[in-house]
Amino acid sequence: MQNNERLLAAIENFLAQRDLPSEPARLYAPIGYSLAEGGKRLRPMLLLLACGIFTDDTTAAMPAAAAVEVFHNFTLLHDDIMDNAALRRGKPSVHAKWGRNVAILSGDAMLIYAYRLLAETPAALLPRIMETFNDMAIGVCEGQQYDMDFEERETVAIEEYMRMIELKTSVLLGGAVTIGALIGGANDTDCRTLYRFAIELGLAFQLQDDLLDSYGDEHTLGKPIGGDILEGKKSYLMITALDRASQQERDILCTVSRDPMLSDAEKIAAVKAIYDRYDIPRLTEQQISLKFERALALLDTLSVGRERTERLRAYATSLMGRKK
Amino acid sequence: MQNNERLLAAIENFLAQRDLPSEPARLYAPIGYSLAEGGKRLRPMLLLLACGIFTDDTTAAMPAAAAVEVFHNFTLLHDDIMDNAALRRGKPSVHAKWGRNVAILSGDAMLIYAYRLLAETPAALLPRIMETFNDMAIGVCEGQQYDMDFEERETVAIEEYMRMIELKTSVLLGGAVTIGALIGGANDTDCRTLYRFAIELGLAFQLQDDLLDSYGDEHTLGKPIGGDILEGKKSYLMITALDRASQQERDILCTVSRDPMLSDAEKIAAVKAIYDRYDIPRLTEQQISLKFERALALLDTLSVGRERTERLRAYATSLMGRKK
Repeated sequence: MQNNERLLAAIENFLAQRDLPSEPARLYAPIGYSLAEGGKRLRPMLLLLACGIFTDDTTAAMPAAAAVEVFHNFTLLHDDIMDNAALRRGKPSVHAKWGRNVAILSGDAMLIYAYRLLAETPAALLPRIMETFNDMAIGVCEGQQYDMDFEERETVAIEEYMRMIELKTSVLLGGAVTIGALIGGANDTDCRTLYRFAIELGLAFQLQDDLLDSYGDEHTLGKPIGGDILEGKKSYLMITALDRASQQERDILCTVSRDPMLSDAEKIAAVKAIYDRYDIPRLTEQQISLKFERALALLDTLSVGRERTERLRAYATSLMGRKK
Repeated sequence: MQNNERLLAAIENFLAQRDLPSEPARLYAPIGYSLAEGGKRLRPMLLLLACGIFTDDTTAAMPAAAAVEVFHNFTLLHDDIMDNAALRRGKPSVHAKWGRNVAILSGDAMLIYAYRLLAETPAALLPRIMETFNDMAIGVCEGQQYDMDFEERETVAIEEYMRMIELKTSVLLGGAVTIGALIGGANDTDCRTLYRFAIELGLAFQLQDDLLDSYGDEHTLGKPIGGDILEGKKSYLMITALDRASQQERDILCTVSRDPMLSDAEKIAAVKAIYDRYDIPRLTEQQISLKFERALALLDTLSVGRERTERLRAYATSLMGRKK
């Protein structure tokens, strides 16, 4: 069995050795650019590790692993247009570099490319894997739409927020591990258990993202701290604070991001003062731990020996310790 | 065997009875809106008629027929953003009605929905049909990118133009008939022949579109005549005329659409005067006939009795007689 670094290298290698056509250049160059930007390769890693629980040879899962990574990068590409984001992983986003129309179309081509990779899955499994992939893909779109809807709303309940991040983040991880498990030959019960594992892990992961955005280290994170606060984003921290704050504090939380009299640093300090007053960072950490523990507990209920889940467990644990 | 009106009604019925989720509303409403707008349902008709050559029961092909129609409408939805088109079939386009971000995301969901329908295809055929669908889908994206590239270029050779419309229009028809034939149980040779039939038919269809845009009847066509001329579009007529015109006439053809001194009617009249001088409408009609005859001749080479191809032949012929 390979260790995780070798697995990551295998994913990078698989993605890199798939030659995209050279023409039309403005259709394919953005796809290569997006995929070369790296990132954690979290989704293919989870897919392959889930597959590895049930089989020692995960080669057959590599195209599907690449497919979920390409799909994920497709969503980032189109999200960046919708969010008008100029940067992605410290480099110009595709729409900033090539323009909006190229970004729309190359994103479309990227989604088709993901299906092309998926179609290389062993034929007998393809119908079931297509269904899992499609449910996952449409769920991510639903999550993105709710996220955009929430931006225009005054208030968002914590349950609505959790459902949104479940769709936008967890469902993709859930799809990845289910596909990996299916290719590995898992039974239905184990597939469902791993799906729930990934849902919990994804929620923990997203809440951690929210926490790091306000309380991470700028240098380690690779972007300025407080972006969510400055955008007036209804993050887990913000929604939890709004639930607890006084009317006066709620007014500050809701309006400070648009206050022309304050500097960015002052806005961030004002919001974090309220967060700290209500112990929001610790409450968030508690939720992260709770969901992460639930995820790990689910791994114990799989029908395999505990040693088969060690690598996935170790990988998930390494994610939770992350500072970026 | 059903007649073509009943086949069309079956497609409409299949599309209409597939309930889309109601939430999130701004993700799904644009999909229903796009699909309800009608149009010729050319692609699913061709798919089902191709299937019907090889089997009397085309029920198994209905989800794939719907998939190519949904895919086609997805391309229109995203093309309308890229072209900044406010109208589609006389109604506000999705991005005009709901905004750009909703149009991007609901288009993405529509592409995934097409794959969902495709996945309902009989499992044994799914790998081959996925491959055909993916090749078709990526070809259409390539065609759209070339189309956008050509807008920024001074000159486009007729061969380049034909290759672009082959990708943008014909490849989708080719994919549709191939998928229909596969589901009908056709052998590889017949699949390839039908693909080439659809490529020729698509070229004839697109050249006819170009001709109608400048020489159709406004009332029948449902849009003003001369749109391509006013946009300075490098249509088949324009490229053919540029190949034949004098330097002075070429200057007129290239610049008239941007001339602030001329009314729309004057611009159209100036270009059409040159078209008429070089017999461009008749040359275009000749090309249309040539490609259409080639398409029909290919049908004669299929391994089935001529009576099996009558309905597809009649349908293709009705398309060629169209005034809109």
